[in-house]
Amino acid sequence: MQRTHCWKSFGGEQQVWQHESRSTGTPMTFAAYIPPQPGPRPVLWFLSGLTCTHANVMEKGQYQRLAAELGLLVICPDTSPRGEGVADAPAYDLGQGAGFYLDATQPPWAEHFRMRSYILDELPSLVAETFPVDMARQGITGHSMGGHGALILSLTAPGHFRSTSAFAPIVAPSKVPWGEKAFASYLGDDRAAWAQHDAVALIEAGARLPALLVDQGTADAFLEEQLQPDRLKVACADAGIPLTLGMHEGYDHSYYFIASFMQSHLRWHAGRLFA
Amino acid sequence: MQRTHCWKSFGGEQQVWQHESRSTGTPMTFAAYIPPQPGPRPVLWFLSGLTCTHANVMEKGQYQRLAAELGLLVICPDTSPRGEGVADAPAYDLGQGAGFYLDATQPPWAEHFRMRSYILDELPSLVAETFPVDMARQGITGHSMGGHGALILSLTAPGHFRSTSAFAPIVAPSKVPWGEKAFASYLGDDRAAWAQHDAVALIEAGARLPALLVDQGTADAFLEEQLQPDRLKVACADAGIPLTLGMHEGYDHSYYFIASFMQSHLRWHAGRLFA
Repeated sequence: MQRTHCWKSFGGEQQVWQHESRSTGTPMTFAAYIPPQPGPRPVLWFLSGLTCTHANVMEKGQYQRLAAELGLLVICPDTSPRGEGVADAPAYDLGQGAGFYLDATQPPWAEHFRMRSYILDELPSLVAETFPVDMARQGITGHSMGGHGALILSLTAPGHFRSTSAFAPIVAPSKVPWGEKAFASYLGDDRAAWAQHDAVALIEAGARLPALLVDQGTADAFLEEQLQPDRLKVACADAGIPLTLGMHEGYDHSYYFIASFMQSHLRWHAGRLFA
Repeated sequence: MQRTHCWKSFGGEQQVWQHESRSTGTPMTFAAYIPPQPGPRPVLWFLSGLTCTHANVMEKGQYQRLAAELGLLVICPDTSPRGEGVADAPAYDLGQGAGFYLDATQPPWAEHFRMRSYILDELPSLVAETFPVDMARQGITGHSMGGHGALILSLTAPGHFRSTSAFAPIVAPSKVPWGEKAFASYLGDDRAAWAQHDAVALIEAGARLPALLVDQGTADAFLEEQLQPDRLKVACADAGIPLTLGMHEGYDHSYYFIASFMQSHLRWHAGRLFA
């Protein structure tokens, strides 16, 4: 594993690392913010959305100031394997940049698109070896496709994450165009497999979280067709999952929205990770 | 003048505007952050460095949260005229993206490179007409070449700005490679003209500021060859200008440095603009 960038930031360090991944069979890049306090620190994972790399939230998410103050180590992975030998599609919502945080089972995707294994198994081991972390205290959040990732990984790996939140997540991918397209390609026609990667379906099938924070802009262009937070609201209500769903007038799907609510997510996770 | 982007951000709005500039004879783009409070608001100008547009600090400067809290309107102009009909050079430090906040007198630059007139005269008029501002309360800051811009514009337009600060500024361009190259091209051989655009030379010649805040990273790759803050320290000491010069261990020339100290600059300006 090689550190390719290191910038001092708010007393800590914003770093970028590259390594050969056995999960994806490709080089993978991730960002790590190391707060100034001595370790071991709790870890917050931020999973990014369609078209993004590790760099978008690192540059535009404005998490460093408060992560430094709270003493959170923040890991921001890439959204898919990448490279010339990796399957891709011309569309922005399939292939490279659109890994959907699952292990694909269908050709040509199954060879490299193994983001679930990468985020849940391989990268945590590397993080534990490399940084001053307390891996018993991990939280996860993400944006849009990455919000979907945060929800499904937390719902399907009980005990792995102590806290879960999301910004404008895809909550029911089996029911919306982004998810239908991705799941049909990566998982094939088996709808039972889809349900294992669909937050609302997982909750309906009995998966639970101790609490959940979701923020969503009302001016988000993807709100009605792709995001549909009411489906999550209903599922959480039926399941007794305490959901704090903030609907925010005038905010869109951009990193300006994410940055505006990043501080409250960091405080929410810190409250649970330091508890 | 046309608003091309508007994102809700921390309760206010991050906007981008485009207009035909009579100063430069080109279309010009700038960013404006409008805080949530009712007007008229004080205005803080942020001038960016070599290679940057209005977008770099808008995306990476992390000023929106505290500008919203303090009620500052923040204007981030581009660093030069741009376009196919505009003179340019292959180098990153001359021509488009490298306007140096002066009105060029030499061909081929004199036709469009009129950033001093643009920032001091034309754009303030447009800002006053367009936004809920109190133009009697303006402050200016900037980074690197933009720190140079903030210093020389404030030093040479007494009364225009109530507060002045800079991040890793070029303080004595006549004495360092970046400035020598730019001034020789834009202003020709007349060293007396150079001195009108050199902060240290201006202070030595009698220009004054009521106070000045400068932050600088000690790991900045340009520190010794291009920035040389000790020249400013000596000039301010000799002139009786109260300079707060923060030398920060381990910080480089990047936007991670800028963001880390943005909050203290905003508070410093707010303290003077609201006084």
